[in-house]
Amino acid sequence: MDPVRVTIWNEFIHERTDERVRAIYPEGMHRTIGDAIATLGPYAVRTATLAEPDHGLPADVLATTDVLVWWGHVAHDQVSEAVVERVQREVLGGMGLVVLHSGHFSRPFQRLMGTTCSLKWREDGAHERLWNLRPGHPVLAGIGETVELDEEEMYGERFDIPEPDELLMVGWFPGGEVFRSLCTWARGLGRVVYFQPGHETHPTYHHPEIQAIIANACGWAARRTRLEDVYAAPNTAPREPRPAAR
Amino acid sequence: MDPVRVTIWNEFIHERTDERVRAIYPEGMHRTIGDAIATLGPYAVRTATLAEPDHGLPADVLATTDVLVWWGHVAHDQVSEAVVERVQREVLGGMGLVVLHSGHFSRPFQRLMGTTCSLKWREDGAHERLWNLRPGHPVLAGIGETVELDEEEMYGERFDIPEPDELLMVGWFPGGEVFRSLCTWARGLGRVVYFQPGHETHPTYHHPEIQAIIANACGWAARRTRLEDVYAAPNTAPREPRPAAR
Amino acid sequence: MDPVRVTIWNEFIHERTDERVRAIYPEGMHRTIGDAIATLGPYAVRTATLAEPDHGLPADVLATTDVLVWWGHVAHDQVSEAVVERVQREVLGGMGLVVLHSGHFSRPFQRLMGTTCSLKWREDGAHERLWNLRPGHPVLAGIGETVELDEEEMYGERFDIPEPDELLMVGWFPGGEVFRSLCTWARGLGRVVYFQPGHETHPTYHHPEIQAIIANACGWAARRTRLEDVYAAPNTAPREPRPAAR
Amino acid sequence: MDPVRVTIWNEFIHERTDERVRAIYPEGMHRTIGDAIATLGPYAVRTATLAEPDHGLPADVLATTDVLVWWGHVAHDQVSEAVVERVQREVLGGMGLVVLHSGHFSRPFQRLMGTTCSLKWREDGAHERLWNLRPGHPVLAGIGETVELDEEEMYGERFDIPEPDELLMVGWFPGGEVFRSLCTWARGLGRVVYFQPGHETHPTYHHPEIQAIIANACGWAARRTRLEDVYAAPNTAPREPRPAAR
Repeated sequence: MDPVRVTIWNEFIHERTDERVRAIYPEGMHRTIGDAIATLGPYAVRTATLAEPDHGLPADVLATTDVLVWWGHVAHDQVSEAVVERVQREVLGGMGLVVLHSGHFSRPFQRLMGTTCSLKWREDGAHERLWNLRPGHPVLAGIGETVELDEEEMYGERFDIPEPDELLMVGWFPGGEVFRSLCTWARGLGRVVYFQPGHETHPTYHHPEIQAIIANACGWAARRTRLEDVYAAPNTAPREPRPAAR
Repeated sequence: MDPVRVTIWNEFIHERTDERVRAIYPEGMHRTIGDAIATLGPYAVRTATLAEPDHGLPADVLATTDVLVWWGHVAHDQVSEAVVERVQREVLGGMGLVVLHSGHFSRPFQRLMGTTCSLKWREDGAHERLWNLRPGHPVLAGIGETVELDEEEMYGERFDIPEPDELLMVGWFPGGEVFRSLCTWARGLGRVVYFQPGHETHPTYHHPEIQAIIANACGWAARRTRLEDVYAAPNTAPREPRPAAR
Repeated sequence: MDPVRVTIWNEFIHERTDERVRAIYPEGMHRTIGDAIATLGPYAVRTATLAEPDHGLPADVLATTDVLVWWGHVAHDQVSEAVVERVQREVLGGMGLVVLHSGHFSRPFQRLMGTTCSLKWREDGAHERLWNLRPGHPVLAGIGETVELDEEEMYGERFDIPEPDELLMVGWFPGGEVFRSLCTWARGLGRVVYFQPGHETHPTYHHPEIQAIIANACGWAARRTRLEDVYAAPNTAPREPRPAAR
Repeated sequence: MDPVRVTIWNEFIHERTDERVRAIYPEGMHRTIGDAIATLGPYAVRTATLAEPDHGLPADVLATTDVLVWWGHVAHDQVSEAVVERVQREVLGGMGLVVLHSGHFSRPFQRLMGTTCSLKWREDGAHERLWNLRPGHPVLAGIGETVELDEEEMYGERFDIPEPDELLMVGWFPGGEVFRSLCTWARGLGRVVYFQPGHETHPTYHHPEIQAIIANACGWAARRTRLEDVYAAPNTAPREPRPAAR
């Protein structure tokens, strides 16, 4: 089996400007996530960041990416329209997209959802419990009844997303909130996953079960085909009287 | 019961430039549809067209519209970004949107779906049979097993849309194609309906059952609330320890 | 507008055998719910209980019921197969069904879902917070961001149900659990709603917002058509060459 | 990778009583399907038939089955309640179920859907065209825009099923009908696929693309976990105040 070609995109700002974040992710979250995934299955990992030309996502990179992981927070509006459009087209043509945490407000995710993807939040570092609604689902392989995070930013409903195709986990917060924390949607020929944990000031991406879910999501959402001209709307000849049998 | 405030938007180009179309819809499709709907229930109908300032859809019109009906074809890219954005926001805040026929490629619909909404097509004026998958659904009130159209443009799958929340009708074409012809989705606090029939060179919008379905869709999708700031993502205080009982 | 014909079915055992429950619902929960609903809209309310002949649900009652509300707990297996089958058929033919609380394990609900509908539970009378995921949905008309219950039995995930067509509320419990508390599904021509609150030892059905949601659910799920022979599988003649235009 | 353990269940009556059917499937459809699947991937195939003790599906067989394929037609009511119940439980506990053609009226399928699964039909042996709505979906791996069958029984809408989680193919018939021909649902921890082609008097299961889709469906729906006591509804202790961090 060919390896799944994963590209992990990170805004990569907090890690360079905030001591607390750098202490947790000295080389950037993309490295932590990428290094973890690479040990968890047949994944060939590349990374890309905002500051690179084309944000590290030129057309040839996306065309050879099976699944794109996306983390962004303070610079969503610095992502160029060209790259947003390119990511959307690749997903509709078959690429997988795994959106993490504050990526809920990233433009590729908003573009694919058609909604604002807004939510409530609170940076109090309380704990979170994620409930597994679908044990045995490929994205939740190896995950038990709950995943426990010692500290995480609170994300609360109403999360303005289209009804997920599959709601896989719901988060519980001690402050009294709930959240649809792990969701999937099909868009065009591609698959989109949203996974809520991962605030930059907490060591969430060092957590083995969080790593496992991201790796699983990459495998599950990975591209199985590639359609190039997603906007084609062909004027077609009738199929009947039917063509000769093959 | 207050009337449902319907605004019917029409590109209104074919009717002014093509004799065949003018013969069928002398005052524009928006008038034919609007006049029909007004007789079918408590609907207060306004119309709006591309050539008007703000395409007839300034903020105050949308804010007082319960459901917007949309027909466009050759001028999708002449609709301003401001109006596209405004329509999307109003839908996410609670307004209904009923997209007709070639409106599949309209920017408000694409924006809300997150996909290309592409399809196959053929202008051969053959007939179409629409199968009713959900008798008794409010959008199909009064509609029997099938709706028969003597002549219609063929629209064929693959229709690049997110899996509908409800698939209400499937179209059959003698050339050998099928189409998901009547679909609904929730987006934010609003509801979106797509309904396939309505090529400009055929008298589809004079057909009583087509009129009834559009009227039903307007009633079903009509706004029930209005959220103004759809992008708000509030930083919220904990709800626990819980507030004193009320 | 004709009134919606609501039949409220209650097992009606706890209220006769348990002092605590009788103190809250002296005439039975069905009366409390029925009296409340009758004041909230054009609802014509009847009640039915387990001990009546046919459990109060003979064929003619169901045939003239637009929406059936169901509360049961300790006697699910005393409901006759004939009545379970009859309820299922009426729902598939267009009747609405609103299943309350411990009705999750009722046989009509299990039959319509196809799953066990099992869940976790704990009778500790702690409070519950219900989060509104779809403000403005007809079932949530008039309901704000949350509904607060001072005391309720805990129901926790995994709730073994098919992915809901619409997930409208998620419950939060101080013991650390979450629950999909308000869900809808289409089944056949009918609509099914499940609503979690309502343990017999708590005054949940005296709560105005809980009453409002049940009333809304009755209006939303109410029958709009009636198909008698739901199992018919007709051998049909071809539709093409097509019938003469009408 | 361990092979997927497939059990193919066939009523196996037509092949023994009808010359036309025996000519097409001399050893039974289960053999034709099984032999084909075994060549298409890592599938370990067993078969089972109605006439065997326990219909060939005792508890230990189901417990070691990853995906069950089901073909039945004239003897649905000869399948024992015990086996119907057992199949349902195994699916809810994680087993896959692939229901073929006239299996739409089989009791395991009806039980899992909660609806009648009725439809229209006509044995005229005309051709069918199946449209692929989701190229690249694992169940449609290797399948192009359409699959063409020279002769097949007509199955037409309204097909009384819950809205599928995924609608993968729609069938077109020259007599003027359409059908949701390839659908998936999650039920409990298991996955259910329905695939429409396969009338006994036509050589449908010799068709390479039909074989490929069935094999794909077996791989996609295959069990990934096994829950034994699917009806368990545990009384659980609070999770908060939370347990000490691990």
